[in-house]
Amino acid sequence: MTDDKNTMEDLVSLCKRRGFVYPASEIYGGINGFWDFGPLGVQLKNNIRDHWWKSMVECTPAGPDGQPLQIVGLDSAIIQNPKTWEASGHVEGFNDPMVDCRECKTRFRVDKIATVTFSKDGDEILSTHIETESASTAFEDAIASLNSKQRKLLKKAGNDVKTSARFLNDTGDGSAVACPLCGGELTEPKMFNLMFETFVGAVRNDDARAYLRPETAQGIFLNYKNVLDTMRVKVPFGVAQIGKAFRNEITPRNFVFRSREFEQMEMEFFCHPDESGRWYEFWKQHRMEWWKSLGISEQNLRFREHGKEELAHYSDACVDIEYRYPFTAPDFGELEGIAHRGCFDLSAHQDYSKIKMEYFDHGGKEADDSRYIPHVIEPASGLTRGTLVLLCEAYTPDPDRPSGVYMKFDPKFAPIKAGILPLVARDGMPEKAVGLYMDLRKDFMVELDIKQNIGKRYARQDEIGTPFCFTIDGQTGEDGTVTVRYRDSLQQERINIDGVKKFLAEKL
Amino acid sequence: MTDDKNTMEDLVSLCKRRGFVYPASEIYGGINGFWDFGPLGVQLKNNIRDHWWKSMVECTPAGPDGQPLQIVGLDSAIIQNPKTWEASGHVEGFNDPMVDCRECKTRFRVDKIATVTFSKDGDEILSTHIETESASTAFEDAIASLNSKQRKLLKKAGNDVKTSARFLNDTGDGSAVACPLCGGELTEPKMFNLMFETFVGAVRNDDARAYLRPETAQGIFLNYKNVLDTMRVKVPFGVAQIGKAFRNEITPRNFVFRSREFEQMEMEFFCHPDESGRWYEFWKQHRMEWWKSLGISEQNLRFREHGKEELAHYSDACVDIEYRYPFTAPDFGELEGIAHRGCFDLSAHQDYSKIKMEYFDHGGKEADDSRYIPHVIEPASGLTRGTLVLLCEAYTPDPDRPSGVYMKFDPKFAPIKAGILPLVARDGMPEKAVGLYMDLRKDFMVELDIKQNIGKRYARQDEIGTPFCFTIDGQTGEDGTVTVRYRDSLQQERINIDGVKKFLAEKL
Repeated sequence: MTDDKNTMEDLVSLCKRRGFVYPASEIYGGINGFWDFGPLGVQLKNNIRDHWWKSMVECTPAGPDGQPLQIVGLDSAIIQNPKTWEASGHVEGFNDPMVDCRECKTRFRVDKIATVTFSKDGDEILSTHIETESASTAFEDAIASLNSKQRKLLKKAGNDVKTSARFLNDTGDGSAVACPLCGGELTEPKMFNLMFETFVGAVRNDDARAYLRPETAQGIFLNYKNVLDTMRVKVPFGVAQIGKAFRNEITPRNFVFRSREFEQMEMEFFCHPDESGRWYEFWKQHRMEWWKSLGISEQNLRFREHGKEELAHYSDACVDIEYRYPFTAPDFGELEGIAHRGCFDLSAHQDYSKIKMEYFDHGGKEADDSRYIPHVIEPASGLTRGTLVLLCEAYTPDPDRPSGVYMKFDPKFAPIKAGILPLVARDGMPEKAVGLYMDLRKDFMVELDIKQNIGKRYARQDEIGTPFCFTIDGQTGEDGTVTVRYRDSLQQERINIDGVKKFLAEKL
Repeated sequence: MTDDKNTMEDLVSLCKRRGFVYPASEIYGGINGFWDFGPLGVQLKNNIRDHWWKSMVECTPAGPDGQPLQIVGLDSAIIQNPKTWEASGHVEGFNDPMVDCRECKTRFRVDKIATVTFSKDGDEILSTHIETESASTAFEDAIASLNSKQRKLLKKAGNDVKTSARFLNDTGDGSAVACPLCGGELTEPKMFNLMFETFVGAVRNDDARAYLRPETAQGIFLNYKNVLDTMRVKVPFGVAQIGKAFRNEITPRNFVFRSREFEQMEMEFFCHPDESGRWYEFWKQHRMEWWKSLGISEQNLRFREHGKEELAHYSDACVDIEYRYPFTAPDFGELEGIAHRGCFDLSAHQDYSKIKMEYFDHGGKEADDSRYIPHVIEPASGLTRGTLVLLCEAYTPDPDRPSGVYMKFDPKFAPIKAGILPLVARDGMPEKAVGLYMDLRKDFMVELDIKQNIGKRYARQDEIGTPFCFTIDGQTGEDGTVTVRYRDSLQQERINIDGVKKFLAEKL
């Protein structure tokens, strides 16, 4: 556990140091919940984005019958008519219950604070109030919250000490839990809407109030009729979108995992109600395979079916694809949700807009079957979270190399595909390196790095996860070969400089 | 002029009908100033986005010495610490002067309303109050605003009628112009900040106020130090970014040209103050060549140097690359601005943040030269506007074809590269079409369209700008050839079905 916490700290530090992710507005002390992607982070993120788009829209998956599915793209505005969010239920329902401390005024989510009690033989030894992610992290956080006197008490109690955690949202009793920071009394829970508000136009009144979208999905539902009327699609078909979404989280945390501004990759798949169960299963399996195809190891991925009680207001069934993040380990955290949204959204928009959302199936054999509101299966994943997962997955400590760590990206997703390095900055080597660079850069994202000790340059390429380095040395002038250095094995071999392009094309 | 207005109406209609651009939230009556990109629009826009990114970041332009420039990418958050916008001058200075009508309460930009007077031999015949884009559109809009009685008066006056337009911002006198809608009296001009505001966190007070960025540029300046410290770049170098920006425009208009939410493609090029003039010239020429390389005809592009009096607060010099839009023709409108921002931004952030923004040049020969705040040249273009320009440029009426119009996209940017059409949906043709589609779709964005009269399918492909159609017919079964139909020439020729992939690769 401590190892995993350190992993996260090290990763955040590497991300900053090597240009993957910077805290937003750092020169002004930052802004809680916002992050900027640096030069390498944006390449990594774009690689995931393009792969999703290609596999979802440009070269759609084959359906159960082996035929390619019909899925088209969309890019809707972040700000929509506010009626959208009334219909979707977000104005009423998109709330987190929260409490404030009456003393120190800090605000907490009720499902994130707990009282942990240590007891032995039925007698309470001591209890502590903590802020924690989940039941699986409560014990560790409780231990960390103890002062030295409490630690001694616990030590003195010896073995067989039992621990129990009561979360505020489980007790339903505000007085059962006190402020984790100052021990102060907490207010009654209050709902807090997670949508960012703004005003459109010159006047600031209720009519002008608008919201930053908390999900990209509604932009798709708004355009369901447009797509149906203007594209040559028939049910079943999908509409896919990648874009920013915003949630005014009370407690942004865990690096870019829970941030207030993030990118989603969502697809709404419209199908016949009777076939929705089948499509739900299809997408569930398909999306898991997709994440595995990114090089994420199977043991770090799992499904988690939502219980009835935790389903969102719009959802008939939902399964998460979870990843074992360093900050949740040994537990898992959400990466993608595949939701069976039923006809909730289209029906709601039909009610609010009075625009018919029915689909008329010209091929329907029976009258009953030919006119219906499609059901929707939604694989909704985070591009920001996907990027975080590839960063976590790639992070590989290795005390035997100078950098102490390397980023083991699948070459397809590595921000830089190859480093081109003259061994020294003289004897004609830089010129040859420039020549190779100029030849490769049209086809691959490559980097030329001429100056500095070669060991330091290799160390940097390890830390940014460059799978191959081509080194121009004295022998290059003699026999036209360069060294290929493999990031993962550290193995080196010589290949002809003219064969480098082919080598890269085969590896990528 | 009337032709151009009709062109714009037709184009907007085609964009809706064929899935390029839909009005946002249309089922709720829309939301003024916001648009959604449909399935074909998003492909077109992505093609421009990827081309810019590739040519700016992944395969950077060669500088004046023939060597590739150093430019890295970035993706900063839309919401930043609000101090950003105090430092940048946007909180104070990013305002439009506006007036309200005291009667009908409509709000206008002072530089967009005018009184147009018709006179003969020095005597006024009549005058009219209008809302209009610029001096070049005032006359036409004035004519359109007249009632039948006024038209008769004007006709009666015969030849040699003189027209003059006084804009409210020129007169400086509110009483000189009345409301174009109801003739009511106007208020004094008032400044209106164009940034959308929101609140971050649970509390709504001045400390929690934040803004949606009105430009992507500041996210780059915020990270100038981070990039310098973490990437192996030296001055001169650039940082490029593509992303959404928001401006609460008083009068959004002209389709996606002036919308409230739009995408920018901006690059900040940091250079030595003494070399900034040279880089300004370099980027000015380079960006013009880039737009031409997208297939935009030279006669529709021009430079317009800003006069001293119209320079933005941050700018030492600025030139626009303008395009002749149908709604500005015969005049031109902005497509990209290349600004010499001097050291305004870095100095301002240094003052506000107390973080040193100086660059230390280890290679500097003289002491004076080795430490300085870089100057910045900024080529800032609109991805949304670029997409609009390609739509306008492609729009080609042709009364001789069934669609009456076709979209003449450069094949590189066409949303769909090829349509694959069986002549009829029987006799084994659909199966062959599917086979070809499956083969091509891994490498190209292609579309399979099986049913409907072939003429209608060709007409659709013309309207969505697909450069090539491959038609499987009876002869395909006999000799393995398909028809290639060229969108622009309507010429048809037969090629071997096995050669289609190579054909496409060569054309794209």
